[in-house]
Amino acid sequence: MKSCVVLFSGGIDSTTALCWALDRYDKVFPLTFDYGQRHRVEVRVATKAARKLGLKPVVIKLDLRQVGGSALTDPGIDLPKPKGLARLKAGTPPTYVPFRNGILLAVAAAWAEAHGVADLVVGFNIVDSPNYPDTRREFIRAMEKAVNAGTGAAFGGPQMRILAPFVGLRKSEIIRRGLALGADYSFSVSCYAGGEKPCGVCSSCLLRARAWKETGRKDPLITRTGKGETK
Amino acid sequence: MKSCVVLFSGGIDSTTALCWALDRYDKVFPLTFDYGQRHRVEVRVATKAARKLGLKPVVIKLDLRQVGGSALTDPGIDLPKPKGLARLKAGTPPTYVPFRNGILLAVAAAWAEAHGVADLVVGFNIVDSPNYPDTRREFIRAMEKAVNAGTGAAFGGPQMRILAPFVGLRKSEIIRRGLALGADYSFSVSCYAGGEKPCGVCSSCLLRARAWKETGRKDPLITRTGKGETK
Repeated sequence: MKSCVVLFSGGIDSTTALCWALDRYDKVFPLTFDYGQRHRVEVRVATKAARKLGLKPVVIKLDLRQVGGSALTDPGIDLPKPKGLARLKAGTPPTYVPFRNGILLAVAAAWAEAHGVADLVVGFNIVDSPNYPDTRREFIRAMEKAVNAGTGAAFGGPQMRILAPFVGLRKSEIIRRGLALGADYSFSVSCYAGGEKPCGVCSSCLLRARAWKETGRKDPLITRTGKGETK
Repeated sequence: MKSCVVLFSGGIDSTTALCWALDRYDKVFPLTFDYGQRHRVEVRVATKAARKLGLKPVVIKLDLRQVGGSALTDPGIDLPKPKGLARLKAGTPPTYVPFRNGILLAVAAAWAEAHGVADLVVGFNIVDSPNYPDTRREFIRAMEKAVNAGTGAAFGGPQMRILAPFVGLRKSEIIRRGLALGADYSFSVSCYAGGEKPCGVCSSCLLRARAWKETGRKDPLITRTGKGETK
């Protein structure tokens, strides 16, 4: 029986990754992290979405406010309100959470090893968000090597894989893939501001709005919650 | 000013690593993990030891009982009581915590990045404990690469280093190094069983006892707590 763990935040990318995994694996474990994020509403939405797909959500608590250094985990750092996506500055943005995906993948790898699962699936992508180092192909490959060097895989156990099927895709392409797989984006939250309804102002809402515009469709989350249309 | 983070559990290896770092860096941050370990007493002992050295301990809570799969984090898995060190089986032992050092290093790297520190110092060593994949040189190098690929280092920020100065040393040699640096091992706990006094039976106590025997000295922890002499 083929099984995998999916890093599932409940956003567009990981919702698509979950559908991608459901199409390919017999058993799928959605792992959601309650990491002290400002937009903690995603934990509730993700577990609800997982249950709607007939899956048993696994929620791991790991408070990254202890680490800080990000507008997503430190309430003292303001969430940027970019005037538009073109104006996003170079370098890691204030919404970058230090090595977050490294931490989440390390815990997911541990959970997978403890549960006899060898494949980790992530929705990471870099085309629309090139400023997050921990979503890049190079990082994913390096992390996979570290996992295989530091777990039972190093002693002849099953090699672990980190699969990032959308790493080279634009978000609009990811949405198209998801729609073809039957993804329900009316229960996916992307906004950093903390509400279930998109604020329409943060960089994550801007990205989501642009992606839906590119697909030529209406974002069903906006239709459902009645808010968040950006100019 | 040179600064570093030390993974500090309060055992012999990390106590020595802390002294090694104090000898080389202007500012040292001891990071201790309260990870749901059976021998959680080490958190209290480590913070006390850090304060005795004039340092401000940083304790990070991260409950690995959510991951399980180890006698150190799952009370349902018995702690092995080996008859002797020679009889330790091949493969990862029940006291291996899945990818624990990968998780701790990932969080430490994040903490370091958030606090502008580039060096991580660990007391990992493999000569006496070859069955833990996440203490090996290969793992440390792979993890260092993953950290540099997934943090601001990838975008021109300072390269992070994971320094494991004792990785190729026997525990008795580590003790000798530490004694030369003035390490106080009377406030270091190694036992897996959960008490401050060594049980004298678990694999960690056996290793510690053998190491002290090799140095030709008395373990000051046993002198202080009056227990744990092994046959």
